Amino acid sequence: MNQDYIKPDNWSIIEEGFDPSRVKSSESLFSIGNGAMGQRANFEEHYSGPTFQGSYIAGVYYPDKTRVGWWKNGYPEYFAKVLNAPSWIGINISINGEALDLFTCKNVENFCRTLNMQEGWLSRSFTATLQNDITVQVETKRFLSLDLDELGAIQYSIKPVNSDAEISFQPYLDAGITNEDSNWDDTFWDVSHVEHNQHQAFIEAKTMKTHFHTCTFMESQVFINKNLLETTPKIQEKSNYIAFTYTCNVKQNNTCSIHKFAGYTVDTNHDKKHLLTAAKTVLQHALNKGFSTLLSDQKQAWQNIWERADITISGDVKAQQGIRFNIFQLNQTYLGKDSRLNIGPKGFTGEKYGGSTYWDTEAYCIPFYMATKDQQVARNLLEYRYNHLEKAIENAEKLGFKDGAALYPMVTMNGEECHNEWEITFEEIHRNGAIAFAIFNYFRYTGDYSYIPEKGLEVLIAIARFWQQRATFSKNKNEYVILGVTGPNEYENNVNNNWYTNYLAQWCIRYTIENIEKVENEFPSDFTRIINKVALRPSEITEWKATADHMYLPFSEEHDIYLQQDGFLDKELITVSDLDDAQRPINQKWSWDRILRSPYIKQADVLQGFYFFETHFSTEALERHFNFYEPFTVHESSLSPCVHSIQAAKLDKMDQAYTFYLRTSRLDLDDYNKEVHEGLHITSMAGTWMSIVEGFGGMRIIDNQLSFTPKIPKQWEAYSFKVNFRNQILKVTITQKETHFEIEQGTELNVLVNNKPRLLKKK
Amino acid sequence: MNQDYIKPDNWSIIEEGFDPSRVKSSESLFSIGNGAMGQRANFEEHYSGPTFQGSYIAGVYYPDKTRVGWWKNGYPEYFAKVLNAPSWIGINISINGEALDLFTCKNVENFCRTLNMQEGWLSRSFTATLQNDITVQVETKRFLSLDLDELGAIQYSIKPVNSDAEISFQPYLDAGITNEDSNWDDTFWDVSHVEHNQHQAFIEAKTMKTHFHTCTFMESQVFINKNLLETTPKIQEKSNYIAFTYTCNVKQNNTCSIHKFAGYTVDTNHDKKHLLTAAKTVLQHALNKGFSTLLSDQKQAWQNIWERADITISGDVKAQQGIRFNIFQLNQTYLGKDSRLNIGPKGFTGEKYGGSTYWDTEAYCIPFYMATKDQQVARNLLEYRYNHLEKAIENAEKLGFKDGAALYPMVTMNGEECHNEWEITFEEIHRNGAIAFAIFNYFRYTGDYSYIPEKGLEVLIAIARFWQQRATFSKNKNEYVILGVTGPNEYENNVNNNWYTNYLAQWCIRYTIENIEKVENEFPSDFTRIINKVALRPSEITEWKATADHMYLPFSEEHDIYLQQDGFLDKELITVSDLDDAQRPINQKWSWDRILRSPYIKQADVLQGFYFFETHFSTEALERHFNFYEPFTVHESSLSPCVHSIQAAKLDKMDQAYTFYLRTSRLDLDDYNKEVHEGLHITSMAGTWMSIVEGFGGMRIIDNQLSFTPKIPKQWEAYSFKVNFRNQILKVTITQKETHFEIEQGTELNVLVNNKPRLLKKK
Repeated sequence: MNQDYIKPDNWSIIEEGFDPSRVKSSESLFSIGNGAMGQRANFEEHYSGPTFQGSYIAGVYYPDKTRVGWWKNGYPEYFAKVLNAPSWIGINISINGEALDLFTCKNVENFCRTLNMQEGWLSRSFTATLQNDITVQVETKRFLSLDLDELGAIQYSIKPVNSDAEISFQPYLDAGITNEDSNWDDTFWDVSHVEHNQHQAFIEAKTMKTHFHTCTFMESQVFINKNLLETTPKIQEKSNYIAFTYTCNVKQNNTCSIHKFAGYTVDTNHDKKHLLTAAKTVLQHALNKGFSTLLSDQKQAWQNIWERADITISGDVKAQQGIRFNIFQLNQTYLGKDSRLNIGPKGFTGEKYGGSTYWDTEAYCIPFYMATKDQQVARNLLEYRYNHLEKAIENAEKLGFKDGAALYPMVTMNGEECHNEWEITFEEIHRNGAIAFAIFNYFRYTGDYSYIPEKGLEVLIAIARFWQQRATFSKNKNEYVILGVTGPNEYENNVNNNWYTNYLAQWCIRYTIENIEKVENEFPSDFTRIINKVALRPSEITEWKATADHMYLPFSEEHDIYLQQDGFLDKELITVSDLDDAQRPINQKWSWDRILRSPYIKQADVLQGFYFFETHFSTEALERHFNFYEPFTVHESSLSPCVHSIQAAKLDKMDQAYTFYLRTSRLDLDDYNKEVHEGLHITSMAGTWMSIVEGFGGMRIIDNQLSFTPKIPKQWEAYSFKVNFRNQILKVTITQKETHFEIEQGTELNVLVNNKPRLLKKK
Repeated sequence: MNQDYIKPDNWSIIEEGFDPSRVKSSESLFSIGNGAMGQRANFEEHYSGPTFQGSYIAGVYYPDKTRVGWWKNGYPEYFAKVLNAPSWIGINISINGEALDLFTCKNVENFCRTLNMQEGWLSRSFTATLQNDITVQVETKRFLSLDLDELGAIQYSIKPVNSDAEISFQPYLDAGITNEDSNWDDTFWDVSHVEHNQHQAFIEAKTMKTHFHTCTFMESQVFINKNLLETTPKIQEKSNYIAFTYTCNVKQNNTCSIHKFAGYTVDTNHDKKHLLTAAKTVLQHALNKGFSTLLSDQKQAWQNIWERADITISGDVKAQQGIRFNIFQLNQTYLGKDSRLNIGPKGFTGEKYGGSTYWDTEAYCIPFYMATKDQQVARNLLEYRYNHLEKAIENAEKLGFKDGAALYPMVTMNGEECHNEWEITFEEIHRNGAIAFAIFNYFRYTGDYSYIPEKGLEVLIAIARFWQQRATFSKNKNEYVILGVTGPNEYENNVNNNWYTNYLAQWCIRYTIENIEKVENEFPSDFTRIINKVALRPSEITEWKATADHMYLPFSEEHDIYLQQDGFLDKELITVSDLDDAQRPINQKWSWDRILRSPYIKQADVLQGFYFFETHFSTEALERHFNFYEPFTVHESSLSPCVHSIQAAKLDKMDQAYTFYLRTSRLDLDDYNKEVHEGLHITSMAGTWMSIVEGFGGMRIIDNQLSFTPKIPKQWEAYSFKVNFRNQILKVTITQKETHFEIEQGTELNVLVNNKPRLLKKK
C-alpha cells in the first residue's frame, strides 16, 4: 500500500516527481481507454528503464496453448489471451542527436503526470537535462476519442530552454511487439503489409490462429510555435515497423510540437479488404478537426457520461477521487455499445487473467451499468451470454452433462472456457447461478420482462438442467447434495455443499420453473417456440422440483448459521485479528494447502448469498452471519470489501462500512495489494459504486419502486449519486442532516424512503 | 490391452513380425538396463518411423522449470527431469549406398525380437529387402554389462542373400539429442569436447544447470566371416556428433559384422578431469575380453541374480513369463549397489513422471529387495531418505512447518520436491508415513535394529513432528483432525480425515515414541547424540501423545467400516460393475471433477492401511472393508491390483486374487492401460512379487519368524519362490497338494506354517 503516491484531487489523478520504480504502476493507473481500445500510460518517447508496454483492442485475442504441469481430462486446449497490439503511440525524440530517454537523462525536474477524468485525457510535463547538457521542457497530452473510437490523438511539445537545438520527432508504428505474459515465446502478429503515403503510414497485420485483421495507422503534423512545418520526413521501414523522422532547428525558448493521430481499424467492424480505406477515413476526420477540436469533442463526450454517472462526495477528497476513478475506469473499459464485448477484469490496463468475461459482470457490474446508462446496455450484457449459450452447452457436454444442460465458462472471450485449474474451471460452478441472477436483477430493476420470453428463458432452462444434473441424491443425508465445488471463497477447493452454491442452485431451479409458467401463460407463442427448441419434457420439471425442494443446506444449530460448506466447523477457528500481520496477505505468505485448511475466507461467500437474496433473510440473521464470517475474512479478492461495505452499512456498522468503502474505492490508487503494476481491478470498481448507492444510500428495488435507507459516513459532509430508473433520472443527495431527491429527467416518481412511501415530482 | 502381442515363453519376451505401430511399445518392453544406465529398445540403424529414443544414466537429471497455469505459493521452481543422454547405440547401415531403414524397406520378413531375461541380452533378427532389391539377413544382439556397469556391447551382423553388396557400418555417438517431454524446448546438454583416436571416439558433455559431466565413448571392430577387418574408417565429426564409416565388399551369403563397445563415464563416479581416461580403461577391458566373453560374463551375472530371486510357476506360462519380466526389470533398474540411487517409476524405460523416488519405494519395493538381495540393499534405500532428511525439513519449512518437522517430497531426485500439483505436492502427505513404515518393516524383517539408533530415529522424530503439527484440534469433534489431504486414492483431492492418513499419522507418532524410549534404554549414547542434535523437548512428546491418543478416525456405524474420508457416504454409491464399460478408464473418459465426486477409487486406500497394519485388525474386519471398498475400485493405478491380490488371497477369494495377480504381473506385457509406449511401470513390479510371496505364499514375519499360509491358484500346478531371511536362503515350493521347504543357504530355521511352528533343517 502506498498512500502518498497519488495526489488527492477531486477530478484528476496526479503524480508528481519522476521515480523509475513507480513507472510500471503509473502505466496502469494512468491508462486511457474508450471502450474499443485502450493504452497503458507508456511514454511516447523511448524509455530504457523497466516498463510494461500495453496497447489493447477490444475483442482481439489469441488462443494461447494451455500450460499445465499435469494434464487433466477436460482442460481446454487453448485459452483466449489478452493481446498486446501493434504500438501506435511511439514518438522517439532526439535532441542534437541524443535520444531523449528519461531513464538516462542527467536530470528530470518538475515531472507531473495528470489523468483528467472530467475531460478524458492524459498529460505529462517535465524538464529534462540530457547528457549533452541541453535542457528541454516537455509537455504531452493524449486521449482516445470517445466519438471516433478508432482514433487516438497525441500532442507532444518541446521547448529547449538553455540553447538552440536540433530536434527530431520520430513518430512510428511498431508491430514487432510481444506479450509480457506469454507461455511459449510465440509471436502473435503476422504482418502482411506496410505502406506509407506522404505523412501517413499503415501496417496491416493479422493475429495468428484467430485471424483478426487490423490496420494500425498514423499521420503526423509538426509545428514550430504553432506554425505547421512543411517538410518531407525521412522514412525508415522494416517488415513490421515504420517510422517518419521530422527534424527542425529550434531556437532557445521556442517550442516545437507534433500532433500524432493514430489508431486501429479492425475487421470486426469493417470488411477486412477495406481496413486501409477505413483508416484513411478516420485520419481524414481527424485532420479535418485537428487536435484542439477533437479535444473539445472529447470533453463534451465525457461531460455527457458524468452527467449520468457522477457521484460527488464533500469533505473527503480521497473518497471523492476514489469513486470518480472507479466510474472513469469502468467507462473507459465498457460503454455498452457493442454486445460482443464485455468487461475484462483488467480492462485495457494489463494482460493478466486472459479472457474478458467472468461472473464479475453479472454479480458486480450490471447494477452500475443499469443505473448509469440506458437500459439497452445491461440488456446487451445479458445477450452476450445468450449468444454464448450453445458454447456453454458444449462446455457442459465436455464435462459429462447432457440434454441441453449448460455450464458457462469461468473465463471467456468467445464463449469457450479459458481457465485451466481444475478446482476453478470444473468446480467453481456458482458462476452459472450469477448469470441467472442477472436476468432476475435486470427485470427487477428495469421492469423489462421482454428479455425473458425472447431469450432469457432458454438460458434459465439450460442452467436449471445443469443444476439438476449436478446435484446428486445422498442416501445418507436423504437430501440432494452438490459435491466437489469451489464457492466464491476460492480459499476452499473441492468442498461439499458450499451453502452459496446449493442455495443458488435451488433458487435457479425455482426461478426457472416460475418463469416457464409465466411465459406459458403470458407469452404462449414464445413458450411454444422455446419448449420445442430446447425439447423440454414435463418430467424434467418434476425432477427439478424434487431437487430444489430437497436441497441440502449445511447449517449449524449451535451457531444458528448456515455453514459455508460441510465440515467448516472442524477447522481451527482462529480469527484474522489473531493472525500475525507478517503472515498477510496469506496468498503471498502461505502455501496453498495451508490456506485451504485454514478458516480464512478470500471474499464474501455466505454473505454474497445474503446480498443476492437479501429479502429471504431477516436482518438479525444477516447480523449473525456477518458477525460469524467477517472475522475470518481476509478480503484478498478485490470483490470482497464492496459486499461487506454494503452489509455493514445495512447493519449500521458505519465505521466498518467506511473502512471497506475506502479499501474498495482506492484499492488501485493506494495499491493495497501491491500489484497495480499488473493493471487495474476493473470489475471491483462496479462494486465500489454499489458500496455507495446500495450501501450508504441503501438503494433497493421493492415492488417496482426505488427504495432508500440513506446513511452517511461521519467523515463526509455530503454525497450525491444519480440513477436512471426506468428512463427517469433521479439525483439523490445525502447530507449529515437530510436526504434530498431531485428528478433530473422525467416527471414524478414514487419511492420508499426508510420504508415510507414518498411521491417525488420534477421541480 | 493386447494379449497376443508378446509370445508366451518361460524365460524370454518375444515379438514376432514387424509392425511399425508397435515400435514405441516394444521400445519400452524390450528395454535393457544394469542399474547404472539403461536403454530403450531403439534400433541401432536409422529408423524413420515413429520412435521414442531413450538412453538414460542413473542419477543424471535436469532441473526443468516448473510449468503451471496459475502459480501457487509453495510450488517448486524447478523439478528434476529424467534426461535423455547422448546416444551410444547408433550404427547406421548402408547397403550399396542405400540406408537400411525398416520403415522404408520394400519388405521385412522373419522379424523377431527377443529379450532373454535369463541371460540378460536383447536380440533382433530379420530379413529385409531394400528399395534397391538387395535382400539382407540381419542379426543383432546387445546388452548392458552387469560387471562393467559403464559398458554396453552390440553385435550387428549382415548377410546379403541375393547378391554381393557393398556394406557400410557407421557407428556413431550423438549428443544432439532431445527429450520427448520437454517444457520449454530447452536443450539440456552442453558438449565441451569431441575426440577420436584410431577406432575410438569420445564426446564429453555436461548437463546444463546441474553440471553432470559425462564422457560418452565407443570403439568398434568390423569382421567379415569372423575375420577382423583391418581398415581405417572415414570420420565424420560435428560439434556434438562423431561417426566412423567402415565399408566392406561382401560376397553373397557371406556375413559381415560389427562389434560396438560403448557407454558412459560420469563424474558421479570419477573425477571429472579423468572421465576420458576412465572411458579408455573401460574400452580396454572390453576389447581385452571381446564380445563373446563379455556375453558369457553377463549370463553368469544374471544367473547369480536369478539364483536368489527367481520365482517359478508351472502350468501357466503367461503367469511365469509375467513374474520373471517383473523380477528382471526390477533388477535392471536397481541393484542396490549405490545408496545415491533409487527406483524410478519408469526405471530406464521412459521419461514420464520426472524424479526417481516416490513412496512406491518404501511401500512396494523394499520387501522385494529385502528378500532377494543382501540386507544392505534395503538399508541403502533407508539411508537414501536419511541423507535427504535436511531437504525434507527445508521442504516442510516452505509449507509453514517448524522445529525440525520434515515432509519428504512426493517425487524427488536429490531430496527436493519435483511435483507441482498442489493437491499432490502439498497434500498427498501420507508418503511421510510410508517412510516411517519402511523403517519398521526393515527391522521386522531383518532384525537389524542398528539402523534406528544410528540414523532412523532422526527420521522418525522429524516425521512425528510433522504429523503433530499437521493435525489440528477440532472443537466440534473434540478430536484431532487432519484436514485437506489427498490419500493414496488420488481420485479424491483435498479431503478431510482420510482414514489411511490419520491412522498412519497416529501410528508414526506412537512408533516414534516407542523407539525414543527403546533407544534411550538400549543405546544411551546414540540417544544423547540424537536428542541434542534434533533439540527434542520432553513437552513435544506429551503433545505427540495427545495428538495420537485423540486422533479422529472416520467410521460408519451403519456399515461397521472405517470411512475412506469424511463425507464418503454422501456420494452416489454406484459400484464399478454398474458402470458402462465405455466410460472406462474413467481417467481418460471423465473430467476431473466428475472423477472426484464419484465413489470410484483409483487404488487401495483403506485397504492399503489394512495391508500395512494387518495385525491391528481381524480378518472379519478386513473382509467387511474389502467387500465394501473393492466394488468401488477401478484399479487405474498400477499399484492397486497387487494389494488387492494379497488381501483377496488372505480372504480365500482365490479367483479374484488370481485375476488381480494377472493384471499386476502382465500390466505392461499385455498393455492393460494402453500406455506402455511411454515406458514400463517398474515400482508396481515389486507389488507383483508381493502378490505371490505375501499373497499366495502368505508369507509374514511374526515374532522374528517367517510364517506362511500357502495357497495356490487353481490354474497353476506349482510355484516356488526364494527368500533371504536373515542371511538364510529358503526356497518354498507350493503345489496343489503340499508345500515344500528347502534351506539353500544356512542350517536350520524355525517357521510357522498355517500358524503352526515347524523346524526346517538343511538337507
